Amino acid sequence: MPDILIITNAQIVTCDKDHHVIASGALVVQAGRICWVGLSDKLPASWRDGAHQLMDADGDIVMPGLINMHAHCGDSLFRGLVEDLPLEAWLNTVWKAEGAILNDPANCHLGASLGFAELLLSGTTTVMDMFWHADQSFGAAREAGIRLASGGIYFDPPGMDGLGSERRDQMAARLFAEYGNDDACFVGTLPHGAYTVGPKALVAAYGLAAENDGFFSIHAAETRAEQETVRASYGKSVIRHLASLGILSKRMVLAHCVHVDDEEIDLIAKSGAHVVHNPLSNLKLGSGFSPVPKMLARGINVTLGTDGPISGNDMDMWLTMRLAATIHKGALEDAAVMPTKQVLHMATLYGARALRAEQHLGSLEVGKRADFIRVDMRGPHASPMFDPITHLVYSAARSDVRDVFVAGRQVVDEGVLLTLDVGDLCARSTALIPQITAALKEAP
Amino acid sequence: MPDILIITNAQIVTCDKDHHVIASGALVVQAGRICWVGLSDKLPASWRDGAHQLMDADGDIVMPGLINMHAHCGDSLFRGLVEDLPLEAWLNTVWKAEGAILNDPANCHLGASLGFAELLLSGTTTVMDMFWHADQSFGAAREAGIRLASGGIYFDPPGMDGLGSERRDQMAARLFAEYGNDDACFVGTLPHGAYTVGPKALVAAYGLAAENDGFFSIHAAETRAEQETVRASYGKSVIRHLASLGILSKRMVLAHCVHVDDEEIDLIAKSGAHVVHNPLSNLKLGSGFSPVPKMLARGINVTLGTDGPISGNDMDMWLTMRLAATIHKGALEDAAVMPTKQVLHMATLYGARALRAEQHLGSLEVGKRADFIRVDMRGPHASPMFDPITHLVYSAARSDVRDVFVAGRQVVDEGVLLTLDVGDLCARSTALIPQITAALKEAP
Repeated sequence: MPDILIITNAQIVTCDKDHHVIASGALVVQAGRICWVGLSDKLPASWRDGAHQLMDADGDIVMPGLINMHAHCGDSLFRGLVEDLPLEAWLNTVWKAEGAILNDPANCHLGASLGFAELLLSGTTTVMDMFWHADQSFGAAREAGIRLASGGIYFDPPGMDGLGSERRDQMAARLFAEYGNDDACFVGTLPHGAYTVGPKALVAAYGLAAENDGFFSIHAAETRAEQETVRASYGKSVIRHLASLGILSKRMVLAHCVHVDDEEIDLIAKSGAHVVHNPLSNLKLGSGFSPVPKMLARGINVTLGTDGPISGNDMDMWLTMRLAATIHKGALEDAAVMPTKQVLHMATLYGARALRAEQHLGSLEVGKRADFIRVDMRGPHASPMFDPITHLVYSAARSDVRDVFVAGRQVVDEGVLLTLDVGDLCARSTALIPQITAALKEAP
Repeated sequence: MPDILIITNAQIVTCDKDHHVIASGALVVQAGRICWVGLSDKLPASWRDGAHQLMDADGDIVMPGLINMHAHCGDSLFRGLVEDLPLEAWLNTVWKAEGAILNDPANCHLGASLGFAELLLSGTTTVMDMFWHADQSFGAAREAGIRLASGGIYFDPPGMDGLGSERRDQMAARLFAEYGNDDACFVGTLPHGAYTVGPKALVAAYGLAAENDGFFSIHAAETRAEQETVRASYGKSVIRHLASLGILSKRMVLAHCVHVDDEEIDLIAKSGAHVVHNPLSNLKLGSGFSPVPKMLARGINVTLGTDGPISGNDMDMWLTMRLAATIHKGALEDAAVMPTKQVLHMATLYGARALRAEQHLGSLEVGKRADFIRVDMRGPHASPMFDPITHLVYSAARSDVRDVFVAGRQVVDEGVLLTLDVGDLCARSTALIPQITAALKEAP
């Protein structure tokens, strides 16, 4: 019989549909899944007696691991390099920098590992990542012990990885074959955007995703300039263009949706496509405010993402929650929009729904994967605590995350990552600086 | 001769007017002041040989302590109690909760201590605080070792402290007498707002500040409702009302200024009054976006504040910097506004200027008070580092603050507060919860 792990004396924020909180709760884990959750003093003796490991949470919050639905972890290597530019100018410089080192797959592996280290330490247990050499990301995710949603990237201009379009298709297909049956992986196809990938490749990428029952994710309606480019090319806005190609569906994960009108919101809602709100990136790059409250009211499943660590410049889901909860209150001058419970769901249960894995992830319920975190509540920034959900959205920070478990396996222990050598990753990423800055100086 | 402390091997972000950064620097402190700052290898032997304490910063960033220009530290006691309400409804509930426990000055002392603990641990070395029983705040600040700007609060309705207007004047005068000559204190008068304090008391409070060469701070132009109330009472907008009373001047610190038109911006600019931008509070309470880039362009000294820990729900100047740097880029759809250097100055040098203490605080320069912090740069969220200033605004967080010194005295050592018992403060604040929630249930 597999080992039984029991967490007791926890304030369990289940993140289930009813936002159930168990004031003094216990959680039983076996074979990577949650077997029992409830009041500590109702824990059946049969479980307690069979426990191989008993952890006292000491009154801390135990909640599901966070789900970050849009990131480019490998861009950790360029953190803080390019500042104060709008998306298009910013992207051109980023691409130059990427070009300097990403032809070497080992550097993509390093960037992914650095990003995964940051994410796990801050309590994110699942991430959707779009990057060059996604095979390296899947390998790095296995080493890190994080749940990864990724797959073949599509990009019409010459890519950083040196692959032509045919080899991109092959890579994407190979990833489905290699990781499609791995419980820790979600495989899909990820075209960069409607302004960088033509209709033929978009439809092919979507077909490959559908054939393998995978997801399909794309940057969509992020900036006004993107809308203008797509309108000039195809005579319609980004969402209408995607809809006209017949590829808006439940397997679609649309990153951003900042500039969408009511009709486009209707198109998204009717298709069942999911949206990822990346508030920090949209602010920093001057993209604007996504109409998130409107999309939620229309029944769209809006999730949260950090975007890459160069549009942030980190990947902090706590900051993302705080921004999602506050910026729309400010923009609409309405303090009642984006209540805390909804925001917490966007970072947990709604992410699981977008991965079409709501039966496995996103809340602490019997039968689900045991992806959970312990959040310290002793800091002077977090005392007293009137309500744990309010606390998680408005007071907690990444440094309050003490323990992290993925499928019942502990990957962070008292703020220390058990799976990777963080110091080594930081040192190796720092060693790449001269090569990157030299390339930017040379570039025209 | 007083003890000499030398910090070596630091990346010194001086925050001086020219944003000077010393890649491998040393800082010499004697008698609470900076005696020398420069390249480590240029450190004169005379200093090095005389050092009583030598600290190796190990390549970390050393920078001035942050200056938080608007807070209500005592409201720590109500953190997370009132959510998703606009300012006026929110304030009515907050006042009920305050009424339940703040008649006891010891609770004001506790709330102030809890707030100061949070601020020091996150690298804030100076705070302007507006709260009931400011004598308690000054006492708590002395114990905590934080630099405090505060003074008598003015409020026409019955206050939480049970003082009538005459005793408020006496309290305010007493604070000038008691703390006016303390190098760690800035004393002023702090009327709550133009909608809660009538013209007579405003002018009296201003007169008392002027008489003692103190500052004068007030909530101003925070919400549309406030503007309507003031317009209904006095026939003019908040800033025009203050100007017509003759109390806009260099000693004025205006908290918020969200709803100000171009003419009001001109009035502020011409008067030399200072503005405190509180981005998180303005977002969370649905107040709106302050025209900060426009005010800065007009030459107004705009500083940063967290506001109280119930409009946040913490007092994190790193988050405040991140928001100040990004939300205006988003609101104006212009990634070039609010560059990182300017934002870092708002949290340091500009704060010192608003306190009319630019010659003593806000940057690491010879002759200034030795208020400085060490910021760890080893985290995976912070590597690699291309530029330390970008890093401080876009990647650093409160938990990266390792050491804090105020006037050369170490108050935080490797993330541990040396001056107060944080666990005890948190436990005592938690013990007040039942009394507060009971009062809210009883209240009509």
